[in-house]
Amino acid sequence: MTRIIMSGCTGKMGRVITAAVKEKADCKIVAGIDLRVPEQSEYPVFSSPEEMQIEADVVIDFSNPTALPSLLRYAEKSGMPMVLCTTGYSELQVAEIKEMSQKVPIFYSGNMSLGINLLIELSKKAAQVFGNAFDVEIVEKHHNQKIDAPSGTALMIADSISSVMEESPKYVYDRHSFRHARTKNEIGIHSVRGGSIVGEHEVIFAGHDEILTISHSAQSKEIFAMGALNAAVFLAKQKPGLYAMSDMLRD
Amino acid sequence: MTRIIMSGCTGKMGRVITAAVKEKADCKIVAGIDLRVPEQSEYPVFSSPEEMQIEADVVIDFSNPTALPSLLRYAEKSGMPMVLCTTGYSELQVAEIKEMSQKVPIFYSGNMSLGINLLIELSKKAAQVFGNAFDVEIVEKHHNQKIDAPSGTALMIADSISSVMEESPKYVYDRHSFRHARTKNEIGIHSVRGGSIVGEHEVIFAGHDEILTISHSAQSKEIFAMGALNAAVFLAKQKPGLYAMSDMLRD
Amino acid sequence: MTRIIMSGCTGKMGRVITAAVKEKADCKIVAGIDLRVPEQSEYPVFSSPEEMQIEADVVIDFSNPTALPSLLRYAEKSGMPMVLCTTGYSELQVAEIKEMSQKVPIFYSGNMSLGINLLIELSKKAAQVFGNAFDVEIVEKHHNQKIDAPSGTALMIADSISSVMEESPKYVYDRHSFRHARTKNEIGIHSVRGGSIVGEHEVIFAGHDEILTISHSAQSKEIFAMGALNAAVFLAKQKPGLYAMSDMLRD
Amino acid sequence: MTRIIMSGCTGKMGRVITAAVKEKADCKIVAGIDLRVPEQSEYPVFSSPEEMQIEADVVIDFSNPTALPSLLRYAEKSGMPMVLCTTGYSELQVAEIKEMSQKVPIFYSGNMSLGINLLIELSKKAAQVFGNAFDVEIVEKHHNQKIDAPSGTALMIADSISSVMEESPKYVYDRHSFRHARTKNEIGIHSVRGGSIVGEHEVIFAGHDEILTISHSAQSKEIFAMGALNAAVFLAKQKPGLYAMSDMLRD
Repeated sequence: MTRIIMSGCTGKMGRVITAAVKEKADCKIVAGIDLRVPEQSEYPVFSSPEEMQIEADVVIDFSNPTALPSLLRYAEKSGMPMVLCTTGYSELQVAEIKEMSQKVPIFYSGNMSLGINLLIELSKKAAQVFGNAFDVEIVEKHHNQKIDAPSGTALMIADSISSVMEESPKYVYDRHSFRHARTKNEIGIHSVRGGSIVGEHEVIFAGHDEILTISHSAQSKEIFAMGALNAAVFLAKQKPGLYAMSDMLRD
Repeated sequence: MTRIIMSGCTGKMGRVITAAVKEKADCKIVAGIDLRVPEQSEYPVFSSPEEMQIEADVVIDFSNPTALPSLLRYAEKSGMPMVLCTTGYSELQVAEIKEMSQKVPIFYSGNMSLGINLLIELSKKAAQVFGNAFDVEIVEKHHNQKIDAPSGTALMIADSISSVMEESPKYVYDRHSFRHARTKNEIGIHSVRGGSIVGEHEVIFAGHDEILTISHSAQSKEIFAMGALNAAVFLAKQKPGLYAMSDMLRD
Repeated sequence: MTRIIMSGCTGKMGRVITAAVKEKADCKIVAGIDLRVPEQSEYPVFSSPEEMQIEADVVIDFSNPTALPSLLRYAEKSGMPMVLCTTGYSELQVAEIKEMSQKVPIFYSGNMSLGINLLIELSKKAAQVFGNAFDVEIVEKHHNQKIDAPSGTALMIADSISSVMEESPKYVYDRHSFRHARTKNEIGIHSVRGGSIVGEHEVIFAGHDEILTISHSAQSKEIFAMGALNAAVFLAKQKPGLYAMSDMLRD
Repeated sequence: MTRIIMSGCTGKMGRVITAAVKEKADCKIVAGIDLRVPEQSEYPVFSSPEEMQIEADVVIDFSNPTALPSLLRYAEKSGMPMVLCTTGYSELQVAEIKEMSQKVPIFYSGNMSLGINLLIELSKKAAQVFGNAFDVEIVEKHHNQKIDAPSGTALMIADSISSVMEESPKYVYDRHSFRHARTKNEIGIHSVRGGSIVGEHEVIFAGHDEILTISHSAQSKEIFAMGALNAAVFLAKQKPGLYAMSDMLRD
């Protein structure tokens, strides 16, 4: 039974994970961390890691980048493994995460869905096989309340595909503003926004008279919760190092 | 048997129509107009309407906006019906077309496919029924040699939907450049470019927990040729006036 | 404020409607009917309409066909409008519903989603315009626990399209069992089953080198609840007669 | 310059390859084989391999299974590599092909498109990662003149996925005929037929609240011609053995 500390427990994903953990037999939440300590909670909630005096096996963090320094200090002090699901870290913060992963196990992924991570693996394979003969375009669709565009996941996909392309491509977000044909060396990224769409990502490989498309559709935020919980159970058994979903795909 | 004069006969669509007419029993091409007069041709080709001395029932024009003045002069002089399939007319030119249609039958459509024109009718109906409760987004996909974005057809679709919306929406081509949620009063238009895609248009109506999508896929340019020929046969029997595909849908 | 009696209140959809009504300002549930009377409930629950002594404006029924006789008796006695969302009625029962609708307002639809009913209207229009030149196929996708195939909604769509076709088409569910080309006079209906898919319906019109597709995706059962509640508010103001979603589309 | 003998040269694919080879600088057709010897042809055509006296590097066969015996006799006698693109071989014939491949290089694939073969590789990978947690369904779409269902390619895909599943699944073509929930151990295969669709294949992995889809769309038969020509150029340089598209993916 993996004992989890939920960082960001009063946020949207914190609450989804708190509900989802009840469907899992192999883990439970034993404490929460949140700047906003709720009056009532199923488990003790602390305003920062420093204040915790609790036995646990792993931290899941679904909060925001400002929480990173205190989490890393806590990781160093306690040796507790960390599943970092927060997005929007600066490059410097990512470097700090990598450094700390030499001392404690850290799982870091911009998207916690098994399906999305598989889509990324498959897209890399397709980009390698097709090479320059196919054009790559990404269409992502999300609800009308989403602030950022493109989605962090769309950028993850584009970066992964770029990493296997011979020449580093340019990301193109708006073709309306110029009048020339598509170049070989670009990836078009399109952000559809509407209704209550949870999240859809489509990678299009368009060649001469044939198109291969790999797409993923999320119907609820619960899949990210399940992914985070599976990662926590996985990470609790690992040695120090930096882990990602692709390590679980290979498992 | 409808006798057709093909304006723009050496261009890409002119040649597709010249090939497609052989599959039609109810019409034939009796002459062509083109600045570039070919050495060999199945029918006589003239460098301008003024030079033609030929018996015919209707003109199909698939050339470019600069040909409009001489075509309209010819229409006025001869009373010959005109199927105008050229895109990119200025507002002034559109006004001239409308004026001339009081004297001769003119068929004018930015897209000659029956399917695309039906997609537009259905999208207008959907926009009326859904009203403000659904967000409208358009995704169009074309080959990697296309110069313009969005496609003229995508704009036709957006304009038609706008015409039935309470408030005139703003067209949004790039969400990457700002950080705020979608507004009610916008239509996102996305231009995917890749491979040899002939033409795909998708209209998405996204509401709370449900999505209606109307999409059209063209597999060859022949469908536009067939649409133009059907329009020519239709127009040859009409009285002066301005006609569009929607008139044929009602037929 | 429309006062609703919820028939089938302990069933899956009964509970979804009980939750969804809280988001609506224009209606509330004042009583429930269910063979299985729960120990606790937000409103009084009766085991049959006969036992109710309650002031209300309309009944929503999401139970099963065996409940129809007592509901119709109650409708006749009380004059109370009935929104019948139950599927699987026999032809005889449908005839009884029609007869009773001469005395009380009855709303009867095999699918309560606004989007699905619009999809049906648009598909009928498309079938009329395209006529024999396009082949019609329907693909529906549902979760892996669904017992029946095809979905009642897929049959509703097929029946509606059939009603506007010149010759009544045959429904084809399995092409694996024969070796011959598609006939003009058929509609292929395909039932995909997998995961937790709430409900997707796709109507394909395939012609020569062009395809028009109208598709609908439901992300939650809540959309059917909202549709039923909107229908209840609508029906409470109507005169006797048989009503369907298409009447609300026109509203 | 690879010199090709085209077996089945007057058939549909034989003619497409004859046209497509002109776009390739690294190969040419030097002779044809066909029961029906045309009066005019760009290259000499023989009614059977036995009659040929011609220098060549490789045979491409796009005819039918009855041609196999004389092709294999010719392969054995001449040592000439064979690209077998014909579908519908019996199990016995496949065994004979394998045996002959110990003496001469044979390339044998049920589908000559690079994209389809990649789709198969990616689908196998997905099936391995998802395991039992996701349901697999295949939807294929072809023109209304296609005789067989499902397509040979859909069966290739299903067989490849089956090969990596723990328990061998049952293929289900018609859910209309029974009333029970989907079992874990099945793959649904759906054959849409309409218009002039060249060929679309969609593999759906449906899990709890998420769906991964891998799909391929062919816009012309030319892609199969290009695949066959690329395979011929590849095979002409190989040692005896049985080759498939996956060998070229690894190349």
